[in-house]
Amino acid sequence: MLNPFELQALEQAILQQHPERVQTLIAHMNPADLAGWIEQLSLEAQVRLIPTLEQAALIFEFLPKTVQAQIAEQLDPADLLQLMSAMHSDDRTDLFKGLSPTLQPWILAELAPEKRHQIQQLAAYPEESAGAIMSSDFVTLSPELTIQQAIEQLRQVAADRETLYLIYIVDALQHLLGVVSLRQIIQAAPEVQLKNLMTTDLVMGQVDEDQEQIAWKLAHYDFLALPIVDQAQRLVGIVTYDDAMDIVEAETTEDILKSGAIESLPNLSLKNAPILSLYRQRVFWLVFLVFGSLLSGFGIAHFEEIIAAHIVLVFFLPLLVGSGGNAGAQSATLMVRALATGDVHFRDWFYLLGRESLVALCLGGTMALAVSVLGYVRGDLMVAVVLALSMLGIVLMGCLVGMSLPFILNKLKLDPASASAPLVTSICDASGVVVYLFIASQLLF
Amino acid sequence: MLNPFELQALEQAILQQHPERVQTLIAHMNPADLAGWIEQLSLEAQVRLIPTLEQAALIFEFLPKTVQAQIAEQLDPADLLQLMSAMHSDDRTDLFKGLSPTLQPWILAELAPEKRHQIQQLAAYPEESAGAIMSSDFVTLSPELTIQQAIEQLRQVAADRETLYLIYIVDALQHLLGVVSLRQIIQAAPEVQLKNLMTTDLVMGQVDEDQEQIAWKLAHYDFLALPIVDQAQRLVGIVTYDDAMDIVEAETTEDILKSGAIESLPNLSLKNAPILSLYRQRVFWLVFLVFGSLLSGFGIAHFEEIIAAHIVLVFFLPLLVGSGGNAGAQSATLMVRALATGDVHFRDWFYLLGRESLVALCLGGTMALAVSVLGYVRGDLMVAVVLALSMLGIVLMGCLVGMSLPFILNKLKLDPASASAPLVTSICDASGVVVYLFIASQLLF
Repeated sequence: MLNPFELQALEQAILQQHPERVQTLIAHMNPADLAGWIEQLSLEAQVRLIPTLEQAALIFEFLPKTVQAQIAEQLDPADLLQLMSAMHSDDRTDLFKGLSPTLQPWILAELAPEKRHQIQQLAAYPEESAGAIMSSDFVTLSPELTIQQAIEQLRQVAADRETLYLIYIVDALQHLLGVVSLRQIIQAAPEVQLKNLMTTDLVMGQVDEDQEQIAWKLAHYDFLALPIVDQAQRLVGIVTYDDAMDIVEAETTEDILKSGAIESLPNLSLKNAPILSLYRQRVFWLVFLVFGSLLSGFGIAHFEEIIAAHIVLVFFLPLLVGSGGNAGAQSATLMVRALATGDVHFRDWFYLLGRESLVALCLGGTMALAVSVLGYVRGDLMVAVVLALSMLGIVLMGCLVGMSLPFILNKLKLDPASASAPLVTSICDASGVVVYLFIASQLLF
Repeated sequence: MLNPFELQALEQAILQQHPERVQTLIAHMNPADLAGWIEQLSLEAQVRLIPTLEQAALIFEFLPKTVQAQIAEQLDPADLLQLMSAMHSDDRTDLFKGLSPTLQPWILAELAPEKRHQIQQLAAYPEESAGAIMSSDFVTLSPELTIQQAIEQLRQVAADRETLYLIYIVDALQHLLGVVSLRQIIQAAPEVQLKNLMTTDLVMGQVDEDQEQIAWKLAHYDFLALPIVDQAQRLVGIVTYDDAMDIVEAETTEDILKSGAIESLPNLSLKNAPILSLYRQRVFWLVFLVFGSLLSGFGIAHFEEIIAAHIVLVFFLPLLVGSGGNAGAQSATLMVRALATGDVHFRDWFYLLGRESLVALCLGGTMALAVSVLGYVRGDLMVAVVLALSMLGIVLMGCLVGMSLPFILNKLKLDPASASAPLVTSICDASGVVVYLFIASQLLF
């Protein structure tokens, strides 16, 4: 690994054109690590260094897509063409989609016909579908081959394939018949035919399936790669385990941001995104939630008299209302995550609601006890009773709202992850005000 | 896949001892899917079915650890011994740790000496360390072997190894010298020696390294498996990509629950956990946050006079205070996630604080405009000014608190993910009350 001084030395060695010094600095570096350092170089140094690297395409693929596009635009077109030709088909297509409209047709025209065709096909699939993330660099063999013949064929195609470890068996029309692992091939006798070795109970993805579902399958079955087929069951691509990890990370970020009442704009870096994008990401929910708070305000306005008569009630207002919001946010968080990991399903709702009621009664009871002591100290016995009853009701209500909202959103065909903590909090706040002041008005007049 | 009726039929076929009917129902099922169905059977049916399965160990490993332990306690000891002998070393050790104290010594005594030794070693590593999650089922070869000899050796050991695709080259003392992939072996000439083919620039994990760091390395380098070495650089285990996915899921759940002010108790299922565990998970934070709300109460108490004089102020209290909390929760969510994915680092704090201030000014400005219109309608011009100024100040403060808390927690050696939305909300609520009522007291008297 380089330290910051070596990074500076690398930058200088590149700009002053000392290839041996550059070589010494980056020798024996893992492609992923080297990409991490290249990311920190100036654009000029990046553009000069990359065409000179031995495994340029491999290293380049480890760079973030936005950085790839910036460098690509500045590269000598011939260098860019060579780089893109050596990339994997899925990364190549992603880069292609990020290029400027002037560069795209030139690249298409210059690429080898097979690769041009691949890009045109892959780029046509909608974002976040299996087609948009899959790679065309898979290995297919005919079912009639023997193990020995198969190994010979594998040797020939090995260089530019994403994985050799899962080999797909297809007929002449590219229909997927089975899968054989390289592990099986190593273990089998040389004269066995692939058709007698292959697994035919296949798990596969459809080309228009959502990428989240694809990642789930890879993780659930512990697969190295998942074959992707088109409507006619022809093999058109594979998605590998490392892509699945990236998808899971991106989808988790989306869920987490939603739960924080933030719209997720794809590929937005907190560090590099324009201020206005960060603003856009957040303003809608903030303004929307103002209306939630307005409901609390109306609740308060309705009970202005009782507040004026017992100003001590205002003192406890944030505490009671906040506790309902907090308990509700907890419930929603637990529920959304349990849905995301498959721990619970929508059909479990009634059962879960029953359990949640018990938990809420325990939580509410504890909180009611605590707050009634405070109420007795600061007010009187009657205030203590009002506080205890309100707390119990508010926490119970908060928990049930938090638990139910993800299910309701799902019924409305909305993403349950949008049951953000702030949304639940706003709803619970408004209802909490009404519960509290209603109980107070009944008991204190 | 089975439907609920078939599941019921399976349960009955097992309990009424109709092995052919069972076979028909579960034929051609993927081990992961079959495990999913077994999970839904009664314990009695599970205990009867599992010893009869062809790939019992493989299927058993797909069951959740708590279910595995329940079944193991009920199995005939001889069946359990056979099952555990066939499991992978990491899963076997996890199961062993979950067994009752009466069963553990018996299993240890009966297992083959090599496997007994493995369990004793693996079980000794602390939870969440690389040692606790790694597997001992890796393949090692000597550097002097030729490709042809290597393939012969691989054939012999293939059956019980976690992966054949990465082969570790070690010296006589088990020191890790290099790694060769099966892909390289397939491509190389038969007479080449492994030492001339192996990669020697190794990325590895230490046996006492945190599991989160191990998962990060696997994802960062796109590795199939990461070798784990002890202090003397001897190879002691591997962690595979599918383990990394499980770790990432568990660590993400922990972070998400923390951000929802929920303590994460390991392996707690929302569906099956005891009510009291769910209560314990949540009560601490709820009570803790009451004290945060009390601060808001004290703020209000301090300004009781101004509230009594301008009761309209109470109407806007939830709105203003809530907006600060919401904006702060957004900032904290963005920051904690960006830290988790490596988008930002702690050294970027000042830079990020500057950017956040700009975003906060835009957000606060928008909100101020909106709320001042409301204030003018419901109050007068002076109220509108008070509201606009308060909103701007509160949103700015909320954003800066939300952005700073993760950094402060980190400086205090606490987990930044504990900068939960509810905690930020409570802090922002209390300060919001003070800001609002202070501005009001200055301008309205």
